[in-house]
Order: sequence, then structure tokens, then C-alpha cells
Amino acid sequence: MENHATSMYMPTAKAKHEHPSLVTKRSVKFTKKEDHPTVTINGLKEGIDQPDCPPANDHDLHKATTFVKDAKAGRNFKFKLDKVSLDFYDTYNRWYFVYLLYFFLFVIMALALFEDPAITNLELPIWTTMTIEFVCLCYFLFRLAHSKRCMSGIFWMGDIKNWIVLSVSVITLIDMVVYVILINKGKPWIRIVRILRPLFMMNFKETKDLRQAFRNIRRSLLGILSVLVLLFLVIGLFALLAREIFEDDVLLKPDASNYMSDYFENFWDLYVLVTTANSPDIMMPAYDASPWYMLFYIIYVILCIYIFMSIFLAVIYKDYRKHLKNEVQKSVFVKRRNLVYAWDLLKVWRGGAFVMPWQRWHALMKSVEPSKSILQLKLIWKVLDKDEDNNIDKRAFMKTADILNVKIIEKSRYVPIWEKHFPRVYNSAVSQIIVKGIKHKFFGWFFDLLIILNAGLIAFRISSIEWFFLTIFSLEIVFKLYALGFYRYFTNPWDVFDFTVIVLAVILSIAAKAAKDSNTLEQRSLDIILVLRVLRLVRIFNNFEKFQVIMKTLRNIGPSIFSFGGVILVIYYVYAIIGMELFAGKITYYGYPSEETTETFNKSLLYCGNQKLNGTEFYRDHYCNNNFNNVAKAYITLFELTIVNQWHDILCLIKCFFHVHPFPGQCL
Amino acid sequence: MENHATSMYMPTAKAKHEHPSLVTKRSVKFTKKEDHPTVTINGLKEGIDQPDCPPANDHDLHKATTFVKDAKAGRNFKFKLDKVSLDFYDTYNRWYFVYLLYFFLFVIMALALFEDPAITNLELPIWTTMTIEFVCLCYFLFRLAHSKRCMSGIFWMGDIKNWIVLSVSVITLIDMVVYVILINKGKPWIRIVRILRPLFMMNFKETKDLRQAFRNIRRSLLGILSVLVLLFLVIGLFALLAREIFEDDVLLKPDASNYMSDYFENFWDLYVLVTTANSPDIMMPAYDASPWYMLFYIIYVILCIYIFMSIFLAVIYKDYRKHLKNEVQKSVFVKRRNLVYAWDLLKVWRGGAFVMPWQRWHALMKSVEPSKSILQLKLIWKVLDKDEDNNIDKRAFMKTADILNVKIIEKSRYVPIWEKHFPRVYNSAVSQIIVKGIKHKFFGWFFDLLIILNAGLIAFRISSIEWFFLTIFSLEIVFKLYALGFYRYFTNPWDVFDFTVIVLAVILSIAAKAAKDSNTLEQRSLDIILVLRVLRLVRIFNNFEKFQVIMKTLRNIGPSIFSFGGVILVIYYVYAIIGMELFAGKITYYGYPSEETTETFNKSLLYCGNQKLNGTEFYRDHYCNNNFNNVAKAYITLFELTIVNQWHDILCLIKCFFHVHPFPGQCL
Repeated sequence: MENHATSMYMPTAKAKHEHPSLVTKRSVKFTKKEDHPTVTINGLKEGIDQPDCPPANDHDLHKATTFVKDAKAGRNFKFKLDKVSLDFYDTYNRWYFVYLLYFFLFVIMALALFEDPAITNLELPIWTTMTIEFVCLCYFLFRLAHSKRCMSGIFWMGDIKNWIVLSVSVITLIDMVVYVILINKGKPWIRIVRILRPLFMMNFKETKDLRQAFRNIRRSLLGILSVLVLLFLVIGLFALLAREIFEDDVLLKPDASNYMSDYFENFWDLYVLVTTANSPDIMMPAYDASPWYMLFYIIYVILCIYIFMSIFLAVIYKDYRKHLKNEVQKSVFVKRRNLVYAWDLLKVWRGGAFVMPWQRWHALMKSVEPSKSILQLKLIWKVLDKDEDNNIDKRAFMKTADILNVKIIEKSRYVPIWEKHFPRVYNSAVSQIIVKGIKHKFFGWFFDLLIILNAGLIAFRISSIEWFFLTIFSLEIVFKLYALGFYRYFTNPWDVFDFTVIVLAVILSIAAKAAKDSNTLEQRSLDIILVLRVLRLVRIFNNFEKFQVIMKTLRNIGPSIFSFGGVILVIYYVYAIIGMELFAGKITYYGYPSEETTETFNKSLLYCGNQKLNGTEFYRDHYCNNNFNNVAKAYITLFELTIVNQWHDILCLIKCFFHVHPFPGQCL
Repeated sequence: MENHATSMYMPTAKAKHEHPSLVTKRSVKFTKKEDHPTVTINGLKEGIDQPDCPPANDHDLHKATTFVKDAKAGRNFKFKLDKVSLDFYDTYNRWYFVYLLYFFLFVIMALALFEDPAITNLELPIWTTMTIEFVCLCYFLFRLAHSKRCMSGIFWMGDIKNWIVLSVSVITLIDMVVYVILINKGKPWIRIVRILRPLFMMNFKETKDLRQAFRNIRRSLLGILSVLVLLFLVIGLFALLAREIFEDDVLLKPDASNYMSDYFENFWDLYVLVTTANSPDIMMPAYDASPWYMLFYIIYVILCIYIFMSIFLAVIYKDYRKHLKNEVQKSVFVKRRNLVYAWDLLKVWRGGAFVMPWQRWHALMKSVEPSKSILQLKLIWKVLDKDEDNNIDKRAFMKTADILNVKIIEKSRYVPIWEKHFPRVYNSAVSQIIVKGIKHKFFGWFFDLLIILNAGLIAFRISSIEWFFLTIFSLEIVFKLYALGFYRYFTNPWDVFDFTVIVLAVILSIAAKAAKDSNTLEQRSLDIILVLRVLRLVRIFNNFEKFQVIMKTLRNIGPSIFSFGGVILVIYYVYAIIGMELFAGKITYYGYPSEETTETFNKSLLYCGNQKLNGTEFYRDHYCNNNFNNVAKAYITLFELTIVNQWHDILCLIKCFFHVHPFPGQCL
């Protein structure tokens, strides 16, 4: 590669996937050849001469920087390419603006805690919540306007997400105005529009993971639609069959109602049976009448629970994999496209091919990652520039974004603080033997053994030698701090956990001792800390390979679990708002009278404060607290419904208050 | 391939996986060249002359036949190669001997229905069941002896399955003798040895599928052992945490017992919670005391139910796939080995390579599949012999077993019986138009519509025009029979289903009409038939592609489901026998008194005939029929436990009768 000819700069429009605004802008050709300050690069091959290469002009560099940054962050934003828009876009992506968005998203969702019906003691006046909501909306609209400024109009208009945010904001504002007017006139207004708030969560570009997870779920659900239809058809047929089989016997349920005599009630009961929630209760009356009737249920259960549910799982698994693959492919495609734009802006014609010389790459990287040292950039360059000619080809350039995301740590020998300040003492023969002993595996095993012993004693409530254990575990911390130094000790999560638990235990023990009286708060904290110490047992499991695999798996699937947790919280939110508007205050927990106190118990507080619940399973099972009186209670109720068991009893609420026919409950 | 030289017969010992008994036997060389009757083969290329080829001698052919038969059936049996043993082995594989084995296996399992505690009205005297069991054992031992005769001693001895069958037989015989002696002395003896009976099911060569499925499950379970240990550790930790958190509040359960105060009871409750069976009941007392307590349960549920259970599923899925792959590989290997043996016996050296000429292959096939016609064999040969030189190489020969398993049907134009006997009438213009009309898709759609209409009317109990539908559906059958003829109509399962349902409905309707009084039996059969007619709706779904995919999936996974169903029935059997020995007669269903009849109800029959159940959830939920009083009831109880819901209430039996500490129930 001894090409000394003046490098040709050939901007082409060959990029496969054109950013349309780019095409128009790129016709501005770069022709002037300027001198540029030579960058002295230590460590790069000095033998190969650096052919002159015009530095990219500032605007191109700016554009390329923005493209690489987007590729690195996985963004897909079609910004305008003029200088002012690029500056705006840089501002748009500043971390404080982004985090402010997250903050306001959190705030607008959390408002439900303070709005009527609020959590006890957390009620805020309407004006406060309204003002907060208004501030949130203003920021959302500002953010929207900001993105509009960076994007060419057509792209902004074409993105349905922007319209959703805009229209939800407008609807919310209108709703707020209406609410304020009506409340002043003394008329109540249901703020059902709050169920639209999750749409903010889903429709900003910054919440891509959540949106992706939601889209994946939605698409997978479409896949099972046909199986679902078939399942309901089968349930419908069995409901009919049940009516014909059982009704002539005039069987009775334990609550003396007719067994399987109404078609819709049969359908409901059999649907509940698919979730196993009313098994075996629903079968017992038939079983009592004749064992042969059980054949009906056995066939039904095998078909609907075991076979259909397995098919559901298989279909969802397959569909989900497929959609996930598509999503990953799409994001790789977007990343490559951004990199291709950056490449096209900075490439240089040299030696019969387009290449990216070190000078330009370095200039690009300096503005993409100002925090990276020249040493780190050289390391990355070494990885990319395999043939060491100080030029990289397109293929190598495409790896840039991924390599930038690899964390590079400059490692140097770490010296414990003791060694730094008291080298003579720390490095003496005796001290070194101690350090070696502490670092020896037997030291670890010995304390593992003590932890097991301690856990056993805690389990069997032998607390007389608690102080001995506390002392010895405190000593362990001191020893380890001496051997490892502060930095290394406190960067190991297990050690931090140990430290926290033991130090808390020591402090609380001393406090409890000092107080002398049975101060419940301190005693109970101590009890819990005691058990947290038992959790240190998990540290011992870390010695087993199988356990490490499980922990690693959990760490790997963590991000997906969080995305889906987010989706679930969002779905809960919608249901919680609806539930609160419909059911708030209808059922309240006032305690349950025991047999002795029945007489003296306030009659109006009986049956969760609602006479309709008299005689229901719901009340009998003491479910009064499963209500929608505030957001927290609503979430807990929804969580219990998610676990599925006894959900039909909880849902009896609906029947109780609306007498809806297809949802039979035991309400009288 | 004009090789007219005398063909060389070169028995070698080059087969990769030597059947050791084969090596010794194969030294008997075949040297004499005999004339053989030429087989005239129509359709084979007459141009290529058939070089003389010595026919395989009868013994080699016999051996090869046996090997191919084993390959075809997927058997792995190391039989001896002398003529007598081969004859014995042929007898051993006769279908009636095999089916007799299946029959006796079924009989010995089914004996549990008739042995004490027997199903009501099915009790047989001890001597009868004993005799039947003895006959079964005799057949098993005969079968074992038969297999011993066909196998060389070392192989037979080396197979653990034979020893299991033998020892279980001996143990059962001893148990029977002891039982008879003790029963004569008036002492009861628990026939717990019956739990060994499933071992017969698993350890005959003929029940390979069941054994394979069982092995697969066993191995997959080993894979989750580490996750299981971790799960129990986590439950143990949470149980400890629960005690420390909740005990100071002195919370009460609805039954007024202390909440979460005993470690083992906590462990049990939290373990039940993992199966969701006691959710949300177990959480409610804590929730009532403080909503913050719910955090404990929410963390626990997410960790143990959602994360751990998903990991379980993933690990089992992965392990199961792996083991299944191994099993398939192994069975392919066994099949190939058998075919290699057959190939080595019959191959001929010709044209520089070993080949199998048509003559030998044909002779082999004639004895492997006497039922196949020469036409079918020629078709198979045509598939194998690609270059049409009347010889196949080893690779083609290896496909033999698989191709023999492909079903070949000789298809000829089918003529409806009407056309055969009344050709003039049937082929007349009018008749042909009618036939075309019946075969037209609109004909089908019209009747589909009628089925939907009929189903709707049945669902809404509009029975006045039942006769109209019956008539028109009967006409449909007549029409279809006319157009398609008997054979084609009755080979379509949907048509057979239609026919059965409609004809039964007509007969029963007429019978009900004739009886005139409200004969419940006929009326109810009619009701059920009515609903079965609704099942014809499923036929309509068959028009949709998605549904066909589901049906096909079900058909494909059917065999595996049956194998696993078998495994489950076997496991149930063991538990049923143990349960019957422990619990038979302790709980009996005597009905539940209503409020009016409580006074007059026989006191000794209250609470399932067991005063200990007074006040338990078990009795309150009317679960008395969930007992182990006979095999059928035991199976149903186990089935209900499998569905998981309310299983802890059913298991309260154990606590009731044995006061086992780790199984708390609500027994008083």
C-alpha cells in the first residue's frame, strides 16, 4: 500500500439504504485540499508513511458522529442534517433531558398513588396533583416539539408514536379542564382517561425495550388466536354435554344450588376448571352421584388443561422466538444503516478501494467518545486494522459500534491502602503469612462452616452464643479488609452483602442491649437481620458450579424479565384505574369478628362493610382486603388474580355489584 | 456390468459392530455352486442379463430374514444363530404370543379392581384372583424361558430386565404363599408386593416405548435436581424469614391458629404456595395486618413460582430433548446393525464390489414379508435400484427396513356398488347429475350450515323441529352412500362418525316415541346423542387450515402422549396400591346432611364416617369421595392431586391419620 498519489475523495450515493435527507445533502462536494495538523501517534507503525488525507470537514464529521452515536445506542432517529438541527439533536440526546423524561414518566404514573382514591395518608389536594400532571404533560409536549425540530416534517408526521403522545396529551388536558369545571359545580367526573397514561410509557423513542416487549407479546397472542377459538368451542361443547348429562339427575352443589343446569354457568365453571381454580370442587357433586361421571371430567381435563395448554405454550414459544429474531434482525439492520451513512461521509479513495484512514477514524472517535483515552482508541484500532496499514475497510468499520460498547478497563496492580501507607509493616514476613492465610481457601471454608452452624442455631432459636458469632464474623471482615484493602473488598457484591448484614447486626444488637427494654422495633429489625445472615448461606452455594450456572442464567435473562415486568405493570395500571373507578369503596376490610365478638361487632362493618357479601366464599375466606380501594390494593388484587388460584372467588365482586349473568358467583 | 465370471462369495468379518455369536457361526463357508430355479421377473429390464448367482442357503436366508424382521420392528434381541434357536425365536415373535403377553400384563394390572379392597360389586374370592395371578406369572415365566432358549446364556444373564421379571415373579409367588397361609390362620397380611406389578409392564422387551418414556423422564428429573435443591433452600430461608417477620405480631389464621409461628409449618405453607394451591388464603392474615407484609409474598411468588418454575421447565425441556435424541440415535444404530448382519450374510462379490442381486433380495423379502405381492416388491426394488442393473449396494440395502414400513396400497378405480350392479341406472344422465351435485362443495356447505343451525337450536333447547333435522341428515347419509358407495363412505372417519350419531339418534328417537312414557334411560341416551350431534360442528372446523394443523399436531404427538399416559398410569398404580393399604375404609362417602336432615342423620355416618374430619376443610368442601377405598377411587383421587388445586386439603388425610408433623392440615 505505497499509494502516494493524492487521495481521491469520491462521495457516492451507493449506500444501500439511503437516508433520503442524506441524499439531498450529500451533493455538497468537498474539493478543497487543506493542510491539517499532523497527529503524532505513538505505537502506530512509523515505517508506513501516512499519505496526506484531507481531514473531514466539521459538518461531515458532525453528521458522522451523530450516526455512529445512534448506531452505538441502537437509536433509529431520522434527524435532519443541517448544522442547527444536528446541534438540536445533540441536545435532545443529552442524558439530563432523557432522564428528565424518565422521571416525568415515573411521576405521571405514580400520581395514581395520590389521586382520589388515594392510599391512606397520601391524599393530595386535586390542585396539587393537577399541577404536577400539567407539568408532566408540558415536558412531554416540549420533548415532542424538540424531536420535531430535529426531524424533517415528513418523517415526524409519519411516525404514529408522535401522534399518540400528542393526542393523549390533548385528551388528558381536555379531561383535566372538564374535571375541574365539573368538580367546581359539585358534579363528580370519572377520570377514566388516566388509563391512557401508560401510552406515554410506550410511545417515546427512549422506551424502546418496553415497546418491543409489548409488541412481541401482542404478536405472539395473535398466533394462539386459532387455538383459543378452538378451546372455547370445545368448552362450549362440553358445557352443552354437561347440561344434558347432569341435569336429569337434579344434582345439588354444596350451596344447594342446581348443579350444571344452566348453559352459561356451565361454560363459566368449565372455563374456570381450565385454570384448575375450582378443581376438584366442581367435580365432587357429580362424583358423589356416580363415579362414571368422573369420566366426563377426566376427558375434559386431559383435553383442555394438559393438551390445549401445552399447545398454547408451544405456539407461544415458537412465535415468540420468531418475533424476537425479527426484532434483533431489524435492530442490527438499523445499526448497520447508520454506520453506512457515517462511512459514506468519511471514506477516502485510496489504493483502488474506499478506506477509512486513522486520522479520520480518530477524529470521529474523539467526538463520539470524548472520554476514551488515546490508548484505548489505539487498542480498538489495532483490533480493527488487521493488516496494520493504518487504513480500515468498510467491513472493519462496521464493527466500530459493537467494539465501542465493549468495556475496556485499564488494569494496574492494585495495592491495599495498608501497603501504601505502612509498607514496612504490611510487607513484613509475619504480616505476609497472615495475608496468605486469609486468602487461603481454608479460611473461606472455615467461615462457610461457621455460617452453616450459625444458620442452624438461628433456625432452632439457640441464641445464647449469638455474640460469639457476631464477634467472629466481625473479625472476618477486619481480616478480609486487611488482606484485600478497601477497594477490592467493596467491589465484591458478596462481601458488601456480608459487611452490611454483620455491621447492621452489631449496631442493632448494641442498640437493643442499650435500650434494655423489649423495644419491639429494634428487636424485630434484629430478627430480620438475623435471618438475612442466614441468607449468607447462598454464598456457600456459590462454590458449586451448577448454582453458578443458574445465577448466570438469571443475570442473563434479567433484562428481558425487567422489560416484561414493565409490560405487566403497565397492564396492571390500566386494570387498576378501571377497577378503582368501578369498585373503590364498595368493599373495605374492617376485620372479622370472632365467635365471641360477633355480638358486639358493628353490624354495618360486617361482611366487608357490604351486606351483599353475606354468605359468600369471598367473605368466608376472609378476602375483604382484596379490593380496589387504592392503587396499591388494586395492584395486589391483580397480582393475586395473576397467580390464578381462587381467582373466581375474587372475581365474584363483579357478580355482586352488577349481577352480570355470565359471571356466576356465590353472591346472594 | 457384464460380469459373467462365476460370482465370488466372500463372507467377511468386516461388519463394524459384530454380533459375537455371528462371528463364530459365519465361519461355515458356502462353497457349492448350485443351479437355482430362475425367477421370471416381469417389468425388470430384460436386456441386462442376469448373471448366475448362487441362491443363499436356507440357514443364511433364515438368519438374514430374522435380522431384517428385527430391524423392521426395531427390536434389539441377541438371538442364537443355530437353526433350532431361530425357529424358537420365530415362534417367540408370533403375534399371538406377543398379544398374549400384553393380555396377561393387562390382566395382572387389572386384578387390583377385583382384589380386596375391590370396587363395589366386583369383589372376587381370594382363590379366584390368586389363580388368575398365578396363571399370569406362569405365562411371564414361560415367556422368560422362551427368550432364554433363543438367546445365548451370556446375553440373557447380562440383561438386568430378565432378572427383574424373574425376581418380581418369585417375590410375588412367595407373597402369595405367605398370604394364603396367614389368611388361613386368620391373620391379615398386607399385599404391598402388588406395587411391584408395574415392573412387569416395564421389563419385557415388548414394552419398549413405555420403558423409553420412563427412562427419559427419570433422566430429565436428574437434570433439575440442582434447581430443586436450590428451590428448597430458598423456601427454607423464606420460612425462617416468615417466622421472624410475622411471629411478633401474633397474627391469627381464619381458623384461629397462630399464623406462621412454626418453622416446619411455614415451610409446608410456602411449599404449597409454590404450587399456588393456597393462594391467596395464606397471604390474607398478613395482608390484613399490614399491606407492607405483601412485599414478602410478592418477592417470594415472583422468585419461586415465576422464575424457578420457568427454569424448571426450561431445564426439563432441554434435557428431555437431549435424551430423546440419544434414544433415537440408539435405535437407528440397532436397526443399522441388524441390517449389516443381514447384508453380510447375503452379499455377493461382483464387479469389484459387494452387491445384493435381485434374486437374493427377492428371496429375503419373500420370507420377511410373505404378504407382499411380487408387484409391490418390484416397486420397492425400483426405488432401491437406482441404476437399474439388478443389483443394489449396501447403502440402498440399508433403506430396506424403512421402505418396508411405508404402506403401499394398490389403488384401482373404485366403483360404487350401485354402479357395479345397476350400471345403466347409475350411469344415466339424471343419476350422474345427482352424483355430481352431491359431490359438489355447495352440498357440503349446505349441510354444514344445517349442522350449525341444528347446534344452535339444541343449545337453546328448541326441540320442536328435531324430526325435520333427523330426516334431512338421514337423507344426507343416503345421498352420500349413493354417490360414494359403501367402501369410500365408511373409510372416511368423519362420515363414520356422522353415520353412527345419526343412526343412533334415529333408533333412539323411535324407541323413545314407541315407549311413550318418560323412560329416563332412552331419553338420556337421546340427550347425549343430541350433544354428540353438536360435536359434528368440529367437522366444519376441518375446513380451516389452522385447525387441520392442530389436528395433525395432535395426531403426531399422539404416540408420545400415549407412552407418557402409560407411565403416569403405572406411577398411579404404585401410589394407588400404597394408598389402599394405608387408607382404605378410613373415609367413606355417606352423603352430606342438609340443614333440615342434620338431626335425623346417622351420627356415625357424619364426617365421612370419621369423627376426626369434623371441622376440616376436607369435609366442609365435601371431599369425602376423594379416598382410597378401591383402585378406581384411588386413581381419581390421584388424578385430582395431579391437577394440583386444593391438593393440600386432600392430603390432609395423612395428617388426620398419622399426625405427621411436617404435613399440617386442619384436622383437630
